[in-house]
Amino acid sequence: MHLDFMDRLADAAEAAVLPHFRQSVDVENKKTDGFDPVTVADRAAEEAMRSLISQHYPNHGVLGEEFEAVATGAEHVWILDPIDGTRAFICGLPTWGTLIGLKSNGFAQLGMMTQPFTRERYFGDGRTAQYNGPGGAAALKTRTCAKLEDATLFCTTPQMFSPGRLEKFRTVEDRVRLSRYGIDCYAYVMLARGLVDLVIEDDLKPYDIAALIPIIEGAGGRVTTWSGDNAVDGGSILASGDPDLHEAVLDLLAL
Amino acid sequence: MHLDFMDRLADAAEAAVLPHFRQSVDVENKKTDGFDPVTVADRAAEEAMRSLISQHYPNHGVLGEEFEAVATGAEHVWILDPIDGTRAFICGLPTWGTLIGLKSNGFAQLGMMTQPFTRERYFGDGRTAQYNGPGGAAALKTRTCAKLEDATLFCTTPQMFSPGRLEKFRTVEDRVRLSRYGIDCYAYVMLARGLVDLVIEDDLKPYDIAALIPIIEGAGGRVTTWSGDNAVDGGSILASGDPDLHEAVLDLLAL
Repeated sequence: MHLDFMDRLADAAEAAVLPHFRQSVDVENKKTDGFDPVTVADRAAEEAMRSLISQHYPNHGVLGEEFEAVATGAEHVWILDPIDGTRAFICGLPTWGTLIGLKSNGFAQLGMMTQPFTRERYFGDGRTAQYNGPGGAAALKTRTCAKLEDATLFCTTPQMFSPGRLEKFRTVEDRVRLSRYGIDCYAYVMLARGLVDLVIEDDLKPYDIAALIPIIEGAGGRVTTWSGDNAVDGGSILASGDPDLHEAVLDLLAL
Repeated sequence: MHLDFMDRLADAAEAAVLPHFRQSVDVENKKTDGFDPVTVADRAAEEAMRSLISQHYPNHGVLGEEFEAVATGAEHVWILDPIDGTRAFICGLPTWGTLIGLKSNGFAQLGMMTQPFTRERYFGDGRTAQYNGPGGAAALKTRTCAKLEDATLFCTTPQMFSPGRLEKFRTVEDRVRLSRYGIDCYAYVMLARGLVDLVIEDDLKPYDIAALIPIIEGAGGRVTTWSGDNAVDGGSILASGDPDLHEAVLDLLAL
């Protein structure tokens, strides 16, 4: 059932979001102490997805970025971020995405990332992962990367790290071949695609990461917290395309 | 003549580049002291464009990123960057572009930026500018932004600035509403589209900027060096959507 239903959720979110992309949108500030825009599109997309979920799976929980959590103790909980990468969205960049995750019995079971402007969809169930979009459908497979010195690393911004964690992040960053900032969920799907080796982030919310775990793990990679635990609830996150490299980097990140 | 011919150049570049996007490509290091990848695609695209130019305009000069300059003292000189944003390209991000500029009598006269994966083209002649791609054709128009405190600023990386210039950049960055890193030519076309207000960069080559000037100026913005001079030969660059804001930021950047 689930891939079809996730495609329906993605369709609903896209119909709500895409008309607002690259248009003048109302940008509100969620935090008074910083810049954290929420768009009309963001809310409309989450409402559309929540409506489908409550209609089809009334016993499932929902945890989304924009509205109150519902039944998060349920066996199945949908974890939604209608626009991951709001800043990219408001600047017109096609590197945001809609994240749709299903957490079952405490673990990320299914995940989808959809980018409606580029017409890309990434889906995973932890065992397999697939791409649909320009160029045709294809299985997703991470690449091997034996040495940290050959790795490409992404992080949305080093400002996300607390001072102690920033030091650990720099220890890894200083050794990689290429380090890039400024990309949110798109970096994780490029990792699933075998074009990026590491994503290291901090202070993530469940809806920033839950949907991406089954995609990356289905493509052969790993996603854990910095202490090697279940990443479904967010926090300090390491995602790796190569499971051996993951272990090596966890050692470097250990606090 | 020129828009048609630029579309032909763009078609030729796209045909050479797109098959290599998100594939395993040979990545060579141009510099021994750093990471500056050149792909097979980069060279094939520049060769395809140079071939069309020498066939149709044998008296024109050509300045490109990948091969030797030809007749740069000619009245008309084509300025080419087949893949601006090579790092984005090798990571699979759709934020690179092919830049095609025509410098005539020392000034940027015509410019095109094309992104073949997203199927977007941006064209300008300094007086008008237009977009073609998903959502349909449209005139490009920068937005007004009276106050620096409301501005969105892009810069590929703060590492591009010399220490004295970094200090000036930070003076501006500290006052803007939103500052983002990691995007190359795509930031400039989003500025032409009215979604970004400022791009501040340093150490640009002519082929990083020449094609973008007629697009931004055709959309109502301004592009100059930090001292307010002709930006066609690169260097320290300020691009602004709002000409009044441009003047104010030039004052802040003055060395």
